[in-house]
Amino acid sequence: MSVLNPSLSVDCVIFGLDTQEQALKILVYERDIFPDDNSGNKNLKFPGSLVADDESLDESADRVLKELTGLKNICLKQFRAFGDPARIKYDEEREWSERHYGVKIDRVVTIAYYALIRIDEHNPDQKLIKDKLRWINIDDTDNLAFDHSYILAKSREALQQDFIFQNVMAFELLPKKFTLQQLQSMYELILGSKFDKRNFRKKIGKAEYIVPLGEKQNGVAHKPAMLFRFDHKKFERSKEGIRNFFI
Amino acid sequence: MSVLNPSLSVDCVIFGLDTQEQALKILVYERDIFPDDNSGNKNLKFPGSLVADDESLDESADRVLKELTGLKNICLKQFRAFGDPARIKYDEEREWSERHYGVKIDRVVTIAYYALIRIDEHNPDQKLIKDKLRWINIDDTDNLAFDHSYILAKSREALQQDFIFQNVMAFELLPKKFTLQQLQSMYELILGSKFDKRNFRKKIGKAEYIVPLGEKQNGVAHKPAMLFRFDHKKFERSKEGIRNFFI
Repeated sequence: MSVLNPSLSVDCVIFGLDTQEQALKILVYERDIFPDDNSGNKNLKFPGSLVADDESLDESADRVLKELTGLKNICLKQFRAFGDPARIKYDEEREWSERHYGVKIDRVVTIAYYALIRIDEHNPDQKLIKDKLRWINIDDTDNLAFDHSYILAKSREALQQDFIFQNVMAFELLPKKFTLQQLQSMYELILGSKFDKRNFRKKIGKAEYIVPLGEKQNGVAHKPAMLFRFDHKKFERSKEGIRNFFI
Repeated sequence: MSVLNPSLSVDCVIFGLDTQEQALKILVYERDIFPDDNSGNKNLKFPGSLVADDESLDESADRVLKELTGLKNICLKQFRAFGDPARIKYDEEREWSERHYGVKIDRVVTIAYYALIRIDEHNPDQKLIKDKLRWINIDDTDNLAFDHSYILAKSREALQQDFIFQNVMAFELLPKKFTLQQLQSMYELILGSKFDKRNFRKKIGKAEYIVPLGEKQNGVAHKPAMLFRFDHKKFERSKEGIRNFFI
């Protein structure tokens, strides 16, 4: 049996919440290996690169994200390794990789990370955006480079599971004081489904960690909405609750 | 920057439910690289090996588990990659690895999988057990080889999260007709905590997917207990429920 010494990379799936457009977007990096007119998304890939000799996987992901996008202090979460022998789909992709990295590329195993950020708070380096980087809507992500559409599907599953089960990161995306409309919109974007407004509010009434502030929005033309805050401690207790929910 | 071409391995964390001893155990493989008298668990590692040139990560995990333990058709789940540059702790471990695999070993990145099985239904090859393999109690797993105690801790988190969130596999470990005592015991072993019997039964009463059969145990000396069954469809619906639990 011939054993594998693969090239090893990290890839960063950055989910960006666009609160202006009420959209969930993905940060992609553009190459120019396929002609523009019929390439679809084949030139688009996640920020990613090869792991260096002396760094851990987490260190590598932080470094690569910073080098390629300017983003730093982002909470990246490793969620899965992808190592199918056929994950480089086209000869052009292999040639691009060898040219880009200056090494012979046989198989590449990639360790994938994801993060969820607010676009208006964490903008990638504008110069890089103009040249190479852009946000695309999560609904327009078919047929990305390599196996990146598959990686995206898996990262979204991980995001949703973590969002429900253990992460408070989503609440860090909301303003300190938020309306139920903002809250519902965030849930809908992350979980990828629409909720009935009345049902949503009924359930929110039961969630102790979403606390009414007894004050209303300022400076809106009419019908200012009630404001709420997120209670960290109560959320931690409700995570205990979810353990008990199944028994 | 010098890029990494690591050795790539898979490691299989096999959780075994021992219904006789009411214990959760782990399958480990014994080497003889440290003297027996003071080695503790340093000679014990998970079944694992290097990935071959032409196989995917999942294929590799299935193959390695079968070759090293005789276990097959086990539902292995990939949960994380481990790639710290210092995960080979001792010179003896590196020397053993190079001797064992017949290749130069610099860094090894490992892709870790876990599975949960019933020990009385899936016994590893007895000859291998005698020579190299054994079940150890999950409470006796300090200071395993390499970073395997850390891998175990992470795999247990993944198991617990999956158990609560999305897996029915635990119910496949119970007999078709089970008592609430058997059910509680399984929950306690997997989640690693003790539950109050009365609270447990109160909550079970709310779980629609655990269905009373209206019949009692046969052939027990006295006080035969009521029997229950697991309802797959209702469980699937309750998973939808858990999505809604947080909103």
